[in-house]
Amino acid sequence: MGTQRQVYFGDVTEACQRISGFIHRTPIFTNSTIDGLTGRNIYFKAENLQKTGSFKVRGAINSVLKLKEKDRAVVGVTTHSSGNHGQALACAARSVRFPCSIVVPSYTSAVKKAAIKGYGAELTECGPLASDRRETCEKVALEKNYEIIPSSDHYDVIAGQGTIAMEFLEQVPDLDAILVSVSGGGMISGIAIAAKHIKPGIKVFAVEPEGKILEKCLTSGERLWPNPPQYLDTIAEGIKLQQVGHLTWPILLELVEKEVFTVNNEEIKVGMQFVFQRMKLVVEAASGAAVAAVLSEQFKTLDSSIKNVGVILCGGNVDIDHLPWY
Amino acid sequence: MGTQRQVYFGDVTEACQRISGFIHRTPIFTNSTIDGLTGRNIYFKAENLQKTGSFKVRGAINSVLKLKEKDRAVVGVTTHSSGNHGQALACAARSVRFPCSIVVPSYTSAVKKAAIKGYGAELTECGPLASDRRETCEKVALEKNYEIIPSSDHYDVIAGQGTIAMEFLEQVPDLDAILVSVSGGGMISGIAIAAKHIKPGIKVFAVEPEGKILEKCLTSGERLWPNPPQYLDTIAEGIKLQQVGHLTWPILLELVEKEVFTVNNEEIKVGMQFVFQRMKLVVEAASGAAVAAVLSEQFKTLDSSIKNVGVILCGGNVDIDHLPWY
Repeated sequence: MGTQRQVYFGDVTEACQRISGFIHRTPIFTNSTIDGLTGRNIYFKAENLQKTGSFKVRGAINSVLKLKEKDRAVVGVTTHSSGNHGQALACAARSVRFPCSIVVPSYTSAVKKAAIKGYGAELTECGPLASDRRETCEKVALEKNYEIIPSSDHYDVIAGQGTIAMEFLEQVPDLDAILVSVSGGGMISGIAIAAKHIKPGIKVFAVEPEGKILEKCLTSGERLWPNPPQYLDTIAEGIKLQQVGHLTWPILLELVEKEVFTVNNEEIKVGMQFVFQRMKLVVEAASGAAVAAVLSEQFKTLDSSIKNVGVILCGGNVDIDHLPWY
Repeated sequence: MGTQRQVYFGDVTEACQRISGFIHRTPIFTNSTIDGLTGRNIYFKAENLQKTGSFKVRGAINSVLKLKEKDRAVVGVTTHSSGNHGQALACAARSVRFPCSIVVPSYTSAVKKAAIKGYGAELTECGPLASDRRETCEKVALEKNYEIIPSSDHYDVIAGQGTIAMEFLEQVPDLDAILVSVSGGGMISGIAIAAKHIKPGIKVFAVEPEGKILEKCLTSGERLWPNPPQYLDTIAEGIKLQQVGHLTWPILLELVEKEVFTVNNEEIKVGMQFVFQRMKLVVEAASGAAVAAVLSEQFKTLDSSIKNVGVILCGGNVDIDHLPWY
């Protein structure tokens, strides 16, 4: 995997300036109970309180703004996503008055469709297969001359997500480690690029649902995942993609710890419950996964020099009528 | 009701200095959807993120600190409350290393008992009647030489709750009105004293569950409630007391608008759901009541000069295993 990395800290600082007027600087929360339980100081970055309810808007708005600066031939944007990235891109496009079409499988819930439409985007429905989504999205892009903005495997998206780490280290300069839930790897790549530049000694740990086998891949340096890409059987919808992207993969290999935190559905649920009940924040299961990692036995085995630990509460887009503990 | 008011703005500013090291300065949230729905700018003061999960700790810590300054004969504090005030007083007492005994009916849920014990307080169980609670509490106070700190009808408690308004008007100086859920009236009294002093033109509106008949009482100037004091049949446990207190009553009569917002269980539930789903915050039903008032038809009829409206999200102590929409 000799691919040269294409995103650097300068891209993240540029992204930061570019998007700052369009996003929230999200607050940091602490909790004395979890500090007591873990014996470390845990800092939560509340991206569930970000516009659109997830961090995804950072990468989306960075991509759209950059496109608008650079390529005057492009007249709109599209992606395929029924989840956070779909809402994020729709919101980003509206911010700069770009037309936007989001491709969603026809089985997508009415609530999710309404959320995307609420940001003024057009919806294009497609069949249930991954290939249906990709093909429909490509067709939309071709017909309308729209640019495709993927949810994570895109340099401007990665740079946008990196702004989380810039903010976090301004808010809590003493962080020794950051735990990040991983799906396609856009968020952890951006965070690792920014955090390791600002503070080379910091450790960036991946958190994954069972079955992602990321530790095995990182340790061996091989993409061991089956193809075509699979979805994992996890309650954490936001991180159900098994493979990380082809652009994010070399960044993970270079900058992320080989030790990975793997959490199961029960642990994810308990992590979510902790945040709801003790911290009074609504978070989705992908955030619960990162909290579960902090509550795990494995976390206790981390080196004692790791005192101040950042955790990304990546999103809050959970259907409150179907919480996983009911 | 010629009772002379006994709490003034100076008491609130003193409380502010006294308690600032012990509480959170809670953040303000806005939401473009609710601004669009209401045609006004709504600002939410997130006391659900306050220590102990509710505003109650402000009044409790003010009372305990003042007691410690003034009366060296008192060796501890007690109250009867299975809810937010019980937790708040337990936490406040621990902060100043005061022994504390909280009287709770024996049917109180294990979760609530554990929360109070978690703050290091002793639990004293009593029978189910209101008179059992009061008598047991008086007995504890006498036997142990503990001071009773009531949940709302106490001058230092009122002054402590008033600090919410001081902070709120520092954070959002342009507020034209504040909506406050009312139970015993401690919070709205304190808020009205502080807010009307800082900004005499501001309007402070009470929000109540059905059956409280507060508007009728305020308009007639009479305490029309039946005795002994009744609990209302509402999902908003934090505001189920029908009567306001005898110390808070003249303050309400003097400073609070006669027009009251009355909300039913269904509206309270919808208010809670809005905050969970759109604002990603966990709030209890008493907070949902204030949001319901903002979403009501009655709210639309308010004078158009009322542009910037503050809403207190008073607490987040809801049992997430028994949310009212399940």
